[in-house]
Amino acid sequence: MERSPLALPFPALAPIAGVRIGTASVAYKQWTRDCVTLVALAPGTVVAGVTTRSKCPSPEVELCRAKLPGGFARGLIVNAGNSNAFTGMNGRQAAQAQAARVAHVLGCSPDEVFSASTGVIGVPLPVDLALSGVTQAHAGLGQADWLAATNAIGTTDTFPKAATASAMIGSTRVTLVGIVKGSGMIAPDMATMLGFIFTDAAVTAVLWQQMLSAAVGGTFNSITVDSDTSTSDTVLAFATGAAGHAPLTSMDDPGADALAAALADVCRQLAILVVRDGEGASKLIEVNVAGAVDDGSAKRVALSIANSPLVKTAIAGGDANWGRVVMAVGKAGEPAERDLLSIRFGDTLVAQNGMVVPGYDESPVAAHLAGDEIRITADLGLGAGRARVWTCDLTHGYISINADYRS
Amino acid sequence: MERSPLALPFPALAPIAGVRIGTASVAYKQWTRDCVTLVALAPGTVVAGVTTRSKCPSPEVELCRAKLPGGFARGLIVNAGNSNAFTGMNGRQAAQAQAARVAHVLGCSPDEVFSASTGVIGVPLPVDLALSGVTQAHAGLGQADWLAATNAIGTTDTFPKAATASAMIGSTRVTLVGIVKGSGMIAPDMATMLGFIFTDAAVTAVLWQQMLSAAVGGTFNSITVDSDTSTSDTVLAFATGAAGHAPLTSMDDPGADALAAALADVCRQLAILVVRDGEGASKLIEVNVAGAVDDGSAKRVALSIANSPLVKTAIAGGDANWGRVVMAVGKAGEPAERDLLSIRFGDTLVAQNGMVVPGYDESPVAAHLAGDEIRITADLGLGAGRARVWTCDLTHGYISINADYRS
Repeated sequence: MERSPLALPFPALAPIAGVRIGTASVAYKQWTRDCVTLVALAPGTVVAGVTTRSKCPSPEVELCRAKLPGGFARGLIVNAGNSNAFTGMNGRQAAQAQAARVAHVLGCSPDEVFSASTGVIGVPLPVDLALSGVTQAHAGLGQADWLAATNAIGTTDTFPKAATASAMIGSTRVTLVGIVKGSGMIAPDMATMLGFIFTDAAVTAVLWQQMLSAAVGGTFNSITVDSDTSTSDTVLAFATGAAGHAPLTSMDDPGADALAAALADVCRQLAILVVRDGEGASKLIEVNVAGAVDDGSAKRVALSIANSPLVKTAIAGGDANWGRVVMAVGKAGEPAERDLLSIRFGDTLVAQNGMVVPGYDESPVAAHLAGDEIRITADLGLGAGRARVWTCDLTHGYISINADYRS
Repeated sequence: MERSPLALPFPALAPIAGVRIGTASVAYKQWTRDCVTLVALAPGTVVAGVTTRSKCPSPEVELCRAKLPGGFARGLIVNAGNSNAFTGMNGRQAAQAQAARVAHVLGCSPDEVFSASTGVIGVPLPVDLALSGVTQAHAGLGQADWLAATNAIGTTDTFPKAATASAMIGSTRVTLVGIVKGSGMIAPDMATMLGFIFTDAAVTAVLWQQMLSAAVGGTFNSITVDSDTSTSDTVLAFATGAAGHAPLTSMDDPGADALAAALADVCRQLAILVVRDGEGASKLIEVNVAGAVDDGSAKRVALSIANSPLVKTAIAGGDANWGRVVMAVGKAGEPAERDLLSIRFGDTLVAQNGMVVPGYDESPVAAHLAGDEIRITADLGLGAGRARVWTCDLTHGYISINADYRS
């Protein structure tokens, strides 16, 4: 797979105290790359998570949902190349057996082991490979860095995606590192296939979950590549507490705002990276909707624009076809008034008062569309509701990748 | 544009008494083909209609909505190559002026003239061309046949699409003829861009509207090409009464059932033809959902499958990727239970009880997918709700057509 033209360089990432990583190759598919990732977390690490809203989730997602209320994590195991979704009792037993093996090697309870798998749907995770992967990855614990882990959790990703941020909690600087894999079957809700965030901050599980839940709405739940939602989507955030400051217990604690903001920043960076690696993407598209009756309505209109194949193909062709944006606003089913609607491409006002602007000059729009970061803004003129979502264009590359993925 | 591989031959169509057609070429675009269609209808012709639910409809759609309650029609004017949508006051005045000219040449009230336009959004209909088209088409009234009319209403259509049916009302045989144009921006609700149906049956406007409204749910509102809904979608049905039988006034009248069934049959034929001419389509896909909690839920799940880019690209690639069907069921947001779901491709059961069927043999499925008429069936196992929708696959052809349409 060719590297996305929208790829960004892998960032410099500091280690997070309390986090050790090992990877292993067990060939879930016909490949030799590492595809099992084991993360060992210091005792006392708290966990928060958000999973797909699919009604057909994978066993790994079900296990995460069951364990998240416990609030503590000692291990994370990730399989790439097999999603283990829709595999019946065999798949569930395989996921449980692998988590049990992780608990055994790490000396913790299976309730503190979180699992995620990504890849083709419908093939049960091979138990022998899954267990062997744990053993091998455990033997190499501490030897894999963030880049190795990011590569090992990927599937059709064309570049490794990670982000970092830091926050001051009192006089202590804490660090956050997030890694994520895409890159198809991306839509709210949960738009990342798999994302994992680690910090050395000390925070209670309840507050950490509150911060993560607040962060995903405008980030992972505001991106779409193809409107398809995975059965496996999972974001897990781990806080080891190794930074040593007094644990945050409430948003009123000094530093809590800073940690929440840093977490949201990492989520936003990761979410946009997923779009930058959207299958076949050649342009990153930011869709802003203002003037809706409320924020929820604005988001539904923004997603209607961002998911429209006709809008996405127009952008792929560099075509300032704002009529398709009108169409996408009109079909959203949300309150809208044709004659109050205005549309911008980049900074250029293209249409308002129910028609193209007088003396419309397409050249600045064409120049904007020739770039690879496109902004579309629709103001509905009705109220104060706003939303921003990110997507990518729809190209021949998407068809090529997905018309022949499984074979 | 290459003719769709799913094209069907143009059917033999009888004239409808009370219907005369003229076409004209006025070059709304850089083309020499006829692109204005005038239909003159006998006095007393009743009309029923259904229009797009877009919040940004074209002026023609607004005019149709305003006139439909009157129940009578003497003229229909159709412009191809310019949708006149989102063109502000100029566009509204152009549409009204053209309708007034039609009323003048036909000697009727403007309230009895129905308008439809299709093509690029955002360019006001040029009044001089629109009026000249009426004059020219009126001069040739009675000289155009169904094929000429079907060709003249088309835009990116690759083959002319029409259907016919007949019904016995007492001892009188009545005939229905429908013509339709697609072929992108096709989604409920209204999935045909423009469709016109004519019959010599005699029926009250209220009953005729009732029959049309009942017919569209399982036909025009059950197809999707790309999930995008046009600002111009319009279906109008005209009944001239020229067959001479006593007018039908209620569904209890003898023959009313037969007329309603024939109308639904024509709508279904036309709707499937639109999908057969979906942009880039290489395969016709029928999606059946059974076992949903109710019919509405079944339809939403069916559309989730039919609109999924990943399902549509898999079919394009002949890939029996039933996991993507699981995904599309799971993302629909409707009641579903992973372990009760079963999936068939063609007649072959592929997955049930939350996993692939034991001893699954892909060869009959591969054979089915090698054809150009594909059936996908998902049984949710929850209730008696059923739905059937039609779509096409998503191919490189769709991208090629839409990434460079306006230029």
